[in-house]
Amino acid sequence: MDRDRILLTPGPLTTTLRTKLAMLKDWGSWDADFNAITARLRGRLLDIVQGHDTHVVVPLQGSGTFSVEAAVATLVPRDGHVLVPDNGAYCKRAGKLTQMMGRKATVLPFAEDQPVSAAAVDQRLQADPSITHVVLIHCETGTGVENPLAAVAAVCRKHGKGLIVDAMSSFAALPIDARELQFDALVAASGKCLEGVPGMGFVFIRKAVLDGCAGNSQSLAMDLHDQHVYMGKTGQWRFTPPTHVVAALDEATAQFVEEGGQPARLARYTDNCRTLIDGMARLGFKPFLQPAVQAPIIVTFHAPAHAAYDFKRFYEGAKQRGFILYPGKLTEVETFRVGCIGAIGRNEMNQAVHAVADTLREMGIPDGRPAR
Amino acid sequence: MDRDRILLTPGPLTTTLRTKLAMLKDWGSWDADFNAITARLRGRLLDIVQGHDTHVVVPLQGSGTFSVEAAVATLVPRDGHVLVPDNGAYCKRAGKLTQMMGRKATVLPFAEDQPVSAAAVDQRLQADPSITHVVLIHCETGTGVENPLAAVAAVCRKHGKGLIVDAMSSFAALPIDARELQFDALVAASGKCLEGVPGMGFVFIRKAVLDGCAGNSQSLAMDLHDQHVYMGKTGQWRFTPPTHVVAALDEATAQFVEEGGQPARLARYTDNCRTLIDGMARLGFKPFLQPAVQAPIIVTFHAPAHAAYDFKRFYEGAKQRGFILYPGKLTEVETFRVGCIGAIGRNEMNQAVHAVADTLREMGIPDGRPAR
Repeated sequence: MDRDRILLTPGPLTTTLRTKLAMLKDWGSWDADFNAITARLRGRLLDIVQGHDTHVVVPLQGSGTFSVEAAVATLVPRDGHVLVPDNGAYCKRAGKLTQMMGRKATVLPFAEDQPVSAAAVDQRLQADPSITHVVLIHCETGTGVENPLAAVAAVCRKHGKGLIVDAMSSFAALPIDARELQFDALVAASGKCLEGVPGMGFVFIRKAVLDGCAGNSQSLAMDLHDQHVYMGKTGQWRFTPPTHVVAALDEATAQFVEEGGQPARLARYTDNCRTLIDGMARLGFKPFLQPAVQAPIIVTFHAPAHAAYDFKRFYEGAKQRGFILYPGKLTEVETFRVGCIGAIGRNEMNQAVHAVADTLREMGIPDGRPAR
Repeated sequence: MDRDRILLTPGPLTTTLRTKLAMLKDWGSWDADFNAITARLRGRLLDIVQGHDTHVVVPLQGSGTFSVEAAVATLVPRDGHVLVPDNGAYCKRAGKLTQMMGRKATVLPFAEDQPVSAAAVDQRLQADPSITHVVLIHCETGTGVENPLAAVAAVCRKHGKGLIVDAMSSFAALPIDARELQFDALVAASGKCLEGVPGMGFVFIRKAVLDGCAGNSQSLAMDLHDQHVYMGKTGQWRFTPPTHVVAALDEATAQFVEEGGQPARLARYTDNCRTLIDGMARLGFKPFLQPAVQAPIIVTFHAPAHAAYDFKRFYEGAKQRGFILYPGKLTEVETFRVGCIGAIGRNEMNQAVHAVADTLREMGIPDGRPAR
């Protein structure tokens, strides 16, 4: 049957029909009607972090990684030095893009199944005064672990260092309040917990550091200072915006507000996550992370130990039953991942567990128990 | 009435309902079904330039400018030297982004109402052997002038210089044949003459120079060599693709093929352009360009000389009648622009002329005659 499958992936994810229907219209990117959408969307994004007094928000074309790169390029001066606490693939990516653009980067390694340690960041900032910025991945989607944003922000503030937060998969689900938390930049994207479609990111930039960012970026397209100044003057994006993606995100944020904002979204995702982990536990599956460090965004499960297990067949079985799973991103341990985010609720999570059970049965695997 | 307006703009433009309907589905970006769309789309793009033997095509997230910047960053070595023949705003932008990323750029100025001269490029390449690449804007959308791609390509070939073509607004409408024309890179985007929605670009790269591009880019997100290698290995985009935009472009290219490909599209746009210019001439409007250098993509008109003329009111009048015009981009002369591209034909162009006539009447302007 040609029915839409449920995406249990960390973005792109399943969106509502209402969000998708917002794309059935072509917008002139210079026109006042479209500028009004951009302005409304920017206002709503600032609402979510209570950031109107302290921050601006600058949207950017491209995937979330484009916005992370743009944030580093715009915020960090050319002779800056970035510390990247690393407990997963997205941390490593942030370190790599920083080095590629010619900024000095120091990567501080942590175990993949543990949050990064704010105390270790504190120590490192104490030991190396040449560090100017810290890039923190709030929720490391490689495993699903939540990093201690508030503690790291406090450490950065204490040392007077800039903090750039990659909140790609946490923004709008986990609480982030700019009145309580000091960050120079915070990055997220359309196709994550706001439940829009992918194609644009956005970066909150602290007003106090904004003027100092002029001229930092070596990339024209990724210069968020220039994008912000132009948008301020004209209400328009500098270069052609992904108009349909913007309209869909505008519609998605309206639904976000109607649902009850961040607390309601967190409650739904937490319930999704619990339903998933409990259901999978009944089948013998074991999450890679301890419950205390598991963000309700994406869950990494150990692969079953049974000899008949093969991720491709397992994936195909779940797909035939209507659910798109996600591969693992760990090199040492065989895992797979299941997202808890998107326009889905407890029903879908229960059905996903049923689909996994059916697939195991078909593969002749009695249960999902891992090797250890 | 809340009806869609016709976009007479150089992209985003009016797309078919069929193209927009392709966005009513969420795709997993890791899934084989989505990879198949990417592969099919890349094949069709290579078909359009007859480039299967000589080129690869690498899609990239973001607006067209992102792809232009990525092409320069990926193709031009860090000690390279780029010559940019300049007859308009998009030429200047290409020069700027080249300099910002730290590559040497020489801008060769021409009059805005004239094509760049291949003979002058020849002379300059002769005079300065340090030049490694030429960046040519095929159709300068700032005015609508068509630049002599074949002649400049021949000059570059003669001197053994790399040619990077910004074919943003010409690709799929004007003929470009990779078997006859040698270029190292050619850049276009989804929301132009292919009549998709905006949100991604793509760059044709000559196979003979591809391997030599490794390590050139200082930007992770814009490294087309890396994007190509990863896509070759996995069938996937490196970072989250704008899945709905990709699906819409796939559907748009299917319609492009059904319509009869590039010759049919050029014929329709040429008819649109003629209908527009003839109709506007009856109202007294005068195009900025001579007919011989006017590409059938976008037409710049002189503003009417009449004292009651005001672009904002003129724009609003046309908009209320269902048509979105485009502002001029010239600093010295007051102009406005009207696009001829998108899912529109002679009917829409005639109706647009009627809307302009009605608007003039409402503004108390007897005709569109310019000052000179």
